[in-house]
Amino acid sequence: MRSYRALESRFARLHALGDAAGILGWDAQTLMPDGAAEGRADQLAVLKGLAHDILTAPETADLLAAAGDEAAGLGPWQRANLAEMRRAHLHATAVPRDLVEANSRAVSRCEMTWRQARRDADFARLAPDLAEVLRLQREVGRAKGERLGLSPYDALLDGYDPGMRRARIDPLFAELRDFLPGYVAEARSRQAAEPPPLPLDGPFPVDLQRQVGLALMGAAGFDFGRGRLDVSLHPFCGGATDDVRITTRYDEADVTRALLGVLHETGHALYEQGRPVAWTRQPVGEARGMSLHESQSLIVEMQACRSRAFAAHLAPLLAGTFGRQGPAWTAENLYRLHTRVEPGFIRVDADEMTYPAHILLRYGLETAMIAGDLAVADLPGAFNDGMRDLLGLAVPDDRLGCLQDIHWPGGSWGYFPTYTLGALAAAQLFRAAREAEPDLVPALARGDFGPLTGWLRANVHAKGSLLDTDALLQEATGAPLGAAAFRLHLEERYLGGVRDRTRG
Amino acid sequence: MRSYRALESRFARLHALGDAAGILGWDAQTLMPDGAAEGRADQLAVLKGLAHDILTAPETADLLAAAGDEAAGLGPWQRANLAEMRRAHLHATAVPRDLVEANSRAVSRCEMTWRQARRDADFARLAPDLAEVLRLQREVGRAKGERLGLSPYDALLDGYDPGMRRARIDPLFAELRDFLPGYVAEARSRQAAEPPPLPLDGPFPVDLQRQVGLALMGAAGFDFGRGRLDVSLHPFCGGATDDVRITTRYDEADVTRALLGVLHETGHALYEQGRPVAWTRQPVGEARGMSLHESQSLIVEMQACRSRAFAAHLAPLLAGTFGRQGPAWTAENLYRLHTRVEPGFIRVDADEMTYPAHILLRYGLETAMIAGDLAVADLPGAFNDGMRDLLGLAVPDDRLGCLQDIHWPGGSWGYFPTYTLGALAAAQLFRAAREAEPDLVPALARGDFGPLTGWLRANVHAKGSLLDTDALLQEATGAPLGAAAFRLHLEERYLGGVRDRTRG
Repeated sequence: MRSYRALESRFARLHALGDAAGILGWDAQTLMPDGAAEGRADQLAVLKGLAHDILTAPETADLLAAAGDEAAGLGPWQRANLAEMRRAHLHATAVPRDLVEANSRAVSRCEMTWRQARRDADFARLAPDLAEVLRLQREVGRAKGERLGLSPYDALLDGYDPGMRRARIDPLFAELRDFLPGYVAEARSRQAAEPPPLPLDGPFPVDLQRQVGLALMGAAGFDFGRGRLDVSLHPFCGGATDDVRITTRYDEADVTRALLGVLHETGHALYEQGRPVAWTRQPVGEARGMSLHESQSLIVEMQACRSRAFAAHLAPLLAGTFGRQGPAWTAENLYRLHTRVEPGFIRVDADEMTYPAHILLRYGLETAMIAGDLAVADLPGAFNDGMRDLLGLAVPDDRLGCLQDIHWPGGSWGYFPTYTLGALAAAQLFRAAREAEPDLVPALARGDFGPLTGWLRANVHAKGSLLDTDALLQEATGAPLGAAAFRLHLEERYLGGVRDRTRG
Repeated sequence: MRSYRALESRFARLHALGDAAGILGWDAQTLMPDGAAEGRADQLAVLKGLAHDILTAPETADLLAAAGDEAAGLGPWQRANLAEMRRAHLHATAVPRDLVEANSRAVSRCEMTWRQARRDADFARLAPDLAEVLRLQREVGRAKGERLGLSPYDALLDGYDPGMRRARIDPLFAELRDFLPGYVAEARSRQAAEPPPLPLDGPFPVDLQRQVGLALMGAAGFDFGRGRLDVSLHPFCGGATDDVRITTRYDEADVTRALLGVLHETGHALYEQGRPVAWTRQPVGEARGMSLHESQSLIVEMQACRSRAFAAHLAPLLAGTFGRQGPAWTAENLYRLHTRVEPGFIRVDADEMTYPAHILLRYGLETAMIAGDLAVADLPGAFNDGMRDLLGLAVPDDRLGCLQDIHWPGGSWGYFPTYTLGALAAAQLFRAAREAEPDLVPALARGDFGPLTGWLRANVHAKGSLLDTDALLQEATGAPLGAAAFRLHLEERYLGGVRDRTRG
């Protein structure tokens, strides 16, 4: 096992470099003074370059080859670890260094252009830089695809959700496309038949919002000995092993946004804090891809904290914290506020019922662009057509349309589908957890996350990257990823109960 | 100049690694959750190891050799840069990797033991680990000394103040030892002849203390676009290039301590922010050693901000900020509070007149230990004898004696003298600045640091590591480092005016 051990030590160093970059990246978005941006970019580039050098060094390849001969003596976690090392090595060595650097430069330039283009709703300004990013992403996808035996898009997708393929996604998304428009229409007409929920009147002082957020993080199982809550313009979960840092952004006029944002990021954080203790610094100890990561944030935010049960706990907690009372502060009104369905232009503001439409649209567009079937110049039109088809909305300008997200300018092609795959997985896992733990929902009504978090730790978090997404779901829920649980969830929450399917 | 250019690019990477470590180290002392300590230590060790690998790679030695042939084509800054690269390379390659690692492990262990030993005033518990650190420091000193052509102690000292030698320090410290005891006695009897200054009555809310600190940092020239002020248990100046982060610790009962601490760290920070713009990421752009660094903090804190002139600005500022009035809040009373002389056990709490005694003591002890003339077991006795001789104090236990500082357990042998060399340099530089800028002191009385900071930027900060300490002082003040200006400063401030030396 000498070669395997040497690889463990090598990947532990890579992990430390990644953790260092994680803290530096967190700092850049929370505390760093503006004048430090250029230096920080240098630091991160140097760390990334050194990590790439270690991963692609001939010695790493030699050790991987030699460790193959030792496989018989390895346990299942070690074998899975070796497989993850190989995967990382394949992804890293598949792309020539010139292409890595060209892509990195193009992305940096395009992100800068995008900020101005979005501000001015000026797609034409972005188009040339975006075309260059697309060209390079297609090259990256081709290069990785050749090594991995995958299509270019699948090769890119594999970087975000290892093992996930278009062949798995397409039927799931087709199913959503089939039933969602009708469900949205029905949910909206049910809501329209009732008086709208009462708004919660502010102001909500930031220190009290933070206090409630911290209390709920703690209740959900967040370990403050190994993490923090801070403020940033765009909320995220980052940091390092045993140092998981989530952020939010407070608005004194709106208590829901920051609070549910904190709970969303807490879901991500619980996954990171719950990774298998013996393997936290090895590839097999990493969280298993972005789909499952998103499932963990959506379980906490959407499945648990926007539930009717949890509203029974949250409503008096908020009323007490902010010293309010009256009909707006009942559990039922809060629940109705938290489950409002309303098609809108902005993906990150979407409710859980209309959110998949934003993803279906982007998935269709990015697969077409990677395949060479859609040109950058035709993107705004295609985007706006899709918004009309999927959500019945006429996009007034590209700022509210195809310029809203950083993913494409930022070179994250193949990332978008993981949001909705995560929503499907969240519903499926929550359903299984609820069945396994009969007290789970009653506990939420008491503000007790114990049964939920305990189940997730054992069935998701502690698995690290031992299994791929489908295999993990199979073990945890008895089935691979599907849309059935998500559909049932929407029926229960928005349509008055589960539909009778026996009618055919 | 191909080799020289390649070296610049190599040292820029090293600089980025150092900056990354600077931010991670700052974070560890300000925000990091406890559970992250082990991971952070890993990250820093990996960064340090990679930097050491780059610096000691055969290719670096080859480039340094080849760049020697290009020296004729280099400008003065480039030549000085090359010399600093060589110095860094010599220091790094002089010590075998085994010894570097053994030393690093011994220091980590000894620091942990020291925390317990200090808490319990139990030197016996520390002694074995400290003896091991000393043994390894002597080896490091010997190894470096052989390569650098220096004695072991001078070789260690050279790591903190390049070019500084015992032969320069000994006569300066002898001079201090000669006149300081009499000066301290006289200052104390002058103070005893007057009623003591009135204390400033608290409480002083932290947010107001922070507000005054920020205002004075800004007035002194601190650039908040390239730095921050935060809180830590032990105040320090850290961070990275264009990201200089100072810390303080607030006590609501005491406004002076945090405020003068902030001003002290601001002096360090101004040096870092004022390094030569074109060279900030090269060795020649670094600050020139710890003696000059300490001189910059002491100029701001001791020379400028504890002056009678500055008290005229500070007293009404504090009275207004905290809404106080009365005889305690006059400029004269504040000045007397800020210039109180009182021998004490703790170095970091010492006034500027008794501080050098703490350093003379430690310098004598550490040079004897490195030379093999003093055993660790005999340290407490020797320390306490020295405190009696130098300050007339009987040390009640080792917590207030030889256990108070982290430097020896932490492997920083050769560091202590730079504190007092810094005090001498501060007096010498301030005197030269005052002569060059007649408005300097009147400006301080208006809260205007412009003339002082402007002179320091031009004559110290912007020089980076172009010159060694003596050469820089020669250029800036007309003389190499001496004790004369410090002596005059003490006479003016504490003894009623400059002594007439013509009497003999």
